[in-house]
Amino acid sequence: MQQILVVNSGSSTLKFKLFQMPDEEVIAQGMVDRLGSDKSVFEIKFHGQKQTKNLPIKSHAAAVDYLMKQLLGLGIIKDIKDISGIGHRVVSGGPVFDNSIAMSDDNLSKLAEVDEYAPLHNPAERKGIEAFNEMLPGVPQVAVFDTSFYRDLPEMNKIYSIPRHLDHKYGAHKYGAHGTSHHYVSDEAAKLLNKNLSSLKMITLHMGSGVSVTAEKDGKAFDTSMGFTPISGVTMSSRAGDVDVSLVAFLMEKLQINDMQKMIDLLNNDSGLKGISGISPDMRDLIAARKTNPDAQLAIDVFINRIVKYVGSYIAEMHGLDVMVFTAGMGENNPHIRAKVMQNFEFLGMQVDHESNDNGQGARIITTPNSKIKGLVVPTDEELMIAREFERLVQSN
Amino acid sequence: MQQILVVNSGSSTLKFKLFQMPDEEVIAQGMVDRLGSDKSVFEIKFHGQKQTKNLPIKSHAAAVDYLMKQLLGLGIIKDIKDISGIGHRVVSGGPVFDNSIAMSDDNLSKLAEVDEYAPLHNPAERKGIEAFNEMLPGVPQVAVFDTSFYRDLPEMNKIYSIPRHLDHKYGAHKYGAHGTSHHYVSDEAAKLLNKNLSSLKMITLHMGSGVSVTAEKDGKAFDTSMGFTPISGVTMSSRAGDVDVSLVAFLMEKLQINDMQKMIDLLNNDSGLKGISGISPDMRDLIAARKTNPDAQLAIDVFINRIVKYVGSYIAEMHGLDVMVFTAGMGENNPHIRAKVMQNFEFLGMQVDHESNDNGQGARIITTPNSKIKGLVVPTDEELMIAREFERLVQSN
Repeated sequence: MQQILVVNSGSSTLKFKLFQMPDEEVIAQGMVDRLGSDKSVFEIKFHGQKQTKNLPIKSHAAAVDYLMKQLLGLGIIKDIKDISGIGHRVVSGGPVFDNSIAMSDDNLSKLAEVDEYAPLHNPAERKGIEAFNEMLPGVPQVAVFDTSFYRDLPEMNKIYSIPRHLDHKYGAHKYGAHGTSHHYVSDEAAKLLNKNLSSLKMITLHMGSGVSVTAEKDGKAFDTSMGFTPISGVTMSSRAGDVDVSLVAFLMEKLQINDMQKMIDLLNNDSGLKGISGISPDMRDLIAARKTNPDAQLAIDVFINRIVKYVGSYIAEMHGLDVMVFTAGMGENNPHIRAKVMQNFEFLGMQVDHESNDNGQGARIITTPNSKIKGLVVPTDEELMIAREFERLVQSN
Repeated sequence: MQQILVVNSGSSTLKFKLFQMPDEEVIAQGMVDRLGSDKSVFEIKFHGQKQTKNLPIKSHAAAVDYLMKQLLGLGIIKDIKDISGIGHRVVSGGPVFDNSIAMSDDNLSKLAEVDEYAPLHNPAERKGIEAFNEMLPGVPQVAVFDTSFYRDLPEMNKIYSIPRHLDHKYGAHKYGAHGTSHHYVSDEAAKLLNKNLSSLKMITLHMGSGVSVTAEKDGKAFDTSMGFTPISGVTMSSRAGDVDVSLVAFLMEKLQINDMQKMIDLLNNDSGLKGISGISPDMRDLIAARKTNPDAQLAIDVFINRIVKYVGSYIAEMHGLDVMVFTAGMGENNPHIRAKVMQNFEFLGMQVDHESNDNGQGARIITTPNSKIKGLVVPTDEELMIAREFERLVQSN
């Protein structure tokens, strides 16, 4: 029995979840919000209670210090030594790390070298690791990379059709995204079906504000819609997904934008559902507006169409499909979108169970018993997956 | 009975084909090569003869002048008035022209406005039209756009997930490519199968040095792999096809390339099969080398995989497939690649007829009678399609 703290550090947030392992029981969870400001907020839920405190928390180190004091002060842990390890979510392992790894000083400095593969995320995550390293010296810390799940992608699905040496020299290939989520829900889907994961051809759809589609075969990732960065793939809330590179050059000229980063910001923040509809990045708003707003309907149609196309492309390269899994915000909570996606595969014998899809709760099957492709909802839990990865790594050492 | 001259003007070439219509008989064909230099070459084939002449041809006007003199001098036509019309291939109609059109002075100046949608092709094509306008005043000239075939793409498949006003204002959507070829082979495929085109779900694969995949439904284009420009889509001889926009920005920094056009040149000229294999853009070289060169094998695998994925995505959005058609250099002449593509769809009941695929000639069915998806080879003939478009347009006026 041990307690594992799972941490997700952002530039202005620090989220945490404390697990009792191996029972996988959540003892406490919460976050520091508005980190770095005078108006930070500390929230914690434990034993059915919720507490919120307002105070300035100026740095990741201060956040960790305050968190530890609260865990002790609220009697959630008796001693700092009760925490046997810390699992950190890290977005990108870049070309250096292809598996979860203990964060020695040496690995921590190597980690700094891959910041450029996720400049919006990795630096903040490193700050979190450094802060815990100082606060809890000697307590094992493990980094779990979102990209690790894609280390097994077949070479042909990992590379771009660019000069090969650019990949060898600069790591210019696909890294994928949401790997920890796809990993978790595929494990859970196999359990729910009482099947061996390696016997299933599976497609997992992580549909939050970021959306990614991952194919799995032989128990490993086989393909994924996110690319070198999460700008690629299907249409997302405010992200464009796939676009023509020459179109980007054309628009830069038309809009008199010289800095490509500004164009990438436009593709990340002002595109997707938001860009097409002109009204909202939130699918719920579009569904509410679609009857009177043709652009809202168009945005929904494009969203479904791009998912259907990625799913179809993966079915083709896997030569079939056994299981389709929906997860994350929209995947877990939007039966309309799930039904629309699944109905496109009726021609392959997929049959939606509307009662379960519309009114069921939690992890469940949402297709009929005769459906040739099983459809599932599996709520994601990246923190639990990180705790499991911590256990797996520590036990294997 | 009338003679229609079909012309394809490049920056340093002018190709021509003279048809007797409506019989569709080729009376003469040939080209001016190295146009604009001191070492131009004029080639013509007619009545089973071939003639080649070396002389300086400095301009498109000079090329047209020389061509007319040769057609008369060789007795191929008796009088310039024998030519009842000229059909010009034009790569892009941009957002202005969505159908074949008579080239009035007014339309010719409008055409200049869409140069930026195909800067490597349209300006030379305009020069050809201008030269014929001067040489043969009063003879109807028609521009047939490669992009016209895609005017019917459903809105959801035409747009990118970018702010909608960028499309409205700048025509920032998909235009497709090879449209005249896809149009021709889909018409011919329906004839060969003795079916009504509008009853068939069809995917046509134009596989030359440029490669594009087009889906057709209800007798119209439904989707296509080429995008705003022909840089997008599947892996090609030296073109990358789809890449992550952020990867382009990352590589520009690594390679210290400031000019995005240089990066686009790299993606157009040094990528694709050539970039992955490091040895050749020609599939035949890669097939010869694959046993001893893993990068050659990888390039082949990627090439097949990207086609299979696009085909799979179109099968999904059309909810099935009746006919798959191969055309252009590789599509017509490489049975190995055709078989590899088709075998990926055995899970949908497609069955290759290896005898017909490997040893057959010309337009034919290359799947077994029981195959649930019909596979066809149809040699493309863009010039004949242009002559047909001329006829259709002139008759409808």
